Amino acid sequence: MKKYLFVEERFREVLKRWGYREVRTSTMDYFDIIRGGAGEGFTDSIFKVQDSDGRLLSLRGEVTTQIARMLASKAKDEGRLCYIANCIRYIEAKNLSLREYWQAGAELIGGERVASDAEAVALALEMLDSAGIPASVDLGSMSAIRELMDHFRIKDYRRVVKAISMKSVDELKKLTCDRHAIRAFSLLMSKRGKAEVVKMVSEEAGCLEGEWRYFRDLYCALDAYGYASRANVDLSTMRELEYYNGVVFELFLGGIGLPIGGGGRYDIMMEQFGLDSPATGFALSVDLCVRALSKSDNNGVGDDRVLRVFYEEGYMEKAVGLVRRLRSTGRACTLDKYKGEQAGLRVGERVVWIETGDEYEL
Amino acid sequence: MKKYLFVEERFREVLKRWGYREVRTSTMDYFDIIRGGAGEGFTDSIFKVQDSDGRLLSLRGEVTTQIARMLASKAKDEGRLCYIANCIRYIEAKNLSLREYWQAGAELIGGERVASDAEAVALALEMLDSAGIPASVDLGSMSAIRELMDHFRIKDYRRVVKAISMKSVDELKKLTCDRHAIRAFSLLMSKRGKAEVVKMVSEEAGCLEGEWRYFRDLYCALDAYGYASRANVDLSTMRELEYYNGVVFELFLGGIGLPIGGGGRYDIMMEQFGLDSPATGFALSVDLCVRALSKSDNNGVGDDRVLRVFYEEGYMEKAVGLVRRLRSTGRACTLDKYKGEQAGLRVGERVVWIETGDEYEL
Repeated sequence: MKKYLFVEERFREVLKRWGYREVRTSTMDYFDIIRGGAGEGFTDSIFKVQDSDGRLLSLRGEVTTQIARMLASKAKDEGRLCYIANCIRYIEAKNLSLREYWQAGAELIGGERVASDAEAVALALEMLDSAGIPASVDLGSMSAIRELMDHFRIKDYRRVVKAISMKSVDELKKLTCDRHAIRAFSLLMSKRGKAEVVKMVSEEAGCLEGEWRYFRDLYCALDAYGYASRANVDLSTMRELEYYNGVVFELFLGGIGLPIGGGGRYDIMMEQFGLDSPATGFALSVDLCVRALSKSDNNGVGDDRVLRVFYEEGYMEKAVGLVRRLRSTGRACTLDKYKGEQAGLRVGERVVWIETGDEYEL
Repeated sequence: MKKYLFVEERFREVLKRWGYREVRTSTMDYFDIIRGGAGEGFTDSIFKVQDSDGRLLSLRGEVTTQIARMLASKAKDEGRLCYIANCIRYIEAKNLSLREYWQAGAELIGGERVASDAEAVALALEMLDSAGIPASVDLGSMSAIRELMDHFRIKDYRRVVKAISMKSVDELKKLTCDRHAIRAFSLLMSKRGKAEVVKMVSEEAGCLEGEWRYFRDLYCALDAYGYASRANVDLSTMRELEYYNGVVFELFLGGIGLPIGGGGRYDIMMEQFGLDSPATGFALSVDLCVRALSKSDNNGVGDDRVLRVFYEEGYMEKAVGLVRRLRSTGRACTLDKYKGEQAGLRVGERVVWIETGDEYEL
């Protein structure tokens, strides 16, 4: 728990410095709001409860949709908001507690596309740095995949996504016979590098010129933030949530195979909620950050020693006076009746340091 | 939200100094665990969901029972634990968000009765003081009510509780004809003061000597903490949760009629969970604290000014360098494209303070 507080405090500090305002959304909300544009798989995984008037309620499984809806309902098309919140999803697990997980996230509404996406990626990396768990980031693009599909007239989005996530050229061949398409998608699935990866796919496909310029500019901006070297283009990068329509990214630590967080651009969800405003954001798993911290030796989480103070029969009030003074100087201490403990401060006629027998005047 | 973070931070700081370890319990848990010993009214108010294996799950409506159960399952009979958590209850309300509320609480397991109860009361008051919202406390005793009932052979506990909470002597007369009983309960319902209130009721009833000694000692301990003057005995004080079996207390602020928090001793719940250990604790409503803070002028919540930095076309990377330096010195700032804003710092060929036109070299 101490590690949770440590990670959350560091995250808050960075978010504040970047001008993000922390908000809290409801743990329970109307199903339609919680569902949002997150897609079927997600919708199946959230808890549903019926309210007294028959309306379906749900527990939040992620926070972005709630924030997007909140902003749309206020017709607020600009802002930087962040949250540190628990989400609950219905997952088959041995342990109930595994269904609840903590996320820290940020949403940037409005702004220029490249600058905002770079800010989101850089902010995520700086948050992780601040907690002493430096990460790298993989960059993908849902709009690049859509554009390739349109260009090669491939229709079945879900199957394309599946083929890419499996990195399976065979699956892809079931969807198109176009050799250019297959070569372009093969490059997309296999190449890893900086912005030039997008250029290669673009040249092979004969489209994606806008995507290539976008990634080139994104790298310039990430370079200004000092994070270009930690960012890799891997166009097979995708997110479980379906509401992304531009860049998507996932953050990885050395020791953990799962992404520790991720995000992307979701302008179209904002549009669906009736707000014509670009939006980008991300969420980090606080749980995975804490786990990463547990593995690292030099994790910076201070050990808060608590001084144990004990009173002998009849000396409780005197001991209370002592702990009050200690606490007023910022010292953490507890007060209990003395029952033969071997360490701490014992308050009786005299105040004695139990381990050494040294006496103190009060 | 800023006020929530302020209040919670202050509370955490005090709890840490008093040697309490923060824990997080599950938002969702098995119904039997959530229900605990909190009583029927409470049980009706919590949400229930069925798990895939047919077991009934619930959302937590309070935290004490979960902590007690957790300690009992580990056979841990000593400790100081605290939490800051949201609870959800099914209340008819215009606004869904009213069903969710934030509590900060502490549980002290083990320890001497008087010393522990005094610690709980003093800790609650110090937490409120630290947030700049000083409170007073009303003290009651469920064991005093039980003892009076036994002494006068009155059986219907619920109706006695109801009569006392209504402060209705008429209701009481429906339960007993004993004039001593009626006089004792009338005193209990009407008198307010320090420990001598218990003495008066005790003398009228011819029992409660132990309670009188307990309150006398409690006041000595509260005096050592510097809080005796803020504590009043009002034996009609009761709590909604039914698991209390000794002292109960409620905290009040000047401006708010509802108690802002409360607690008491719940040894019997621990016993029901199979742990033979005394226990006392309390919870404060963070929501009401924030509301109290909103009313007070000098509330100590700092205004965190965020510096707005804008870049002109082509100067984004230069501006990123500037905000990086500002943030590294702890300054909060945002970065956006310049669109004619009237305040902030504008980064182009030169860096200009928009309001005054002053220029800066980078």
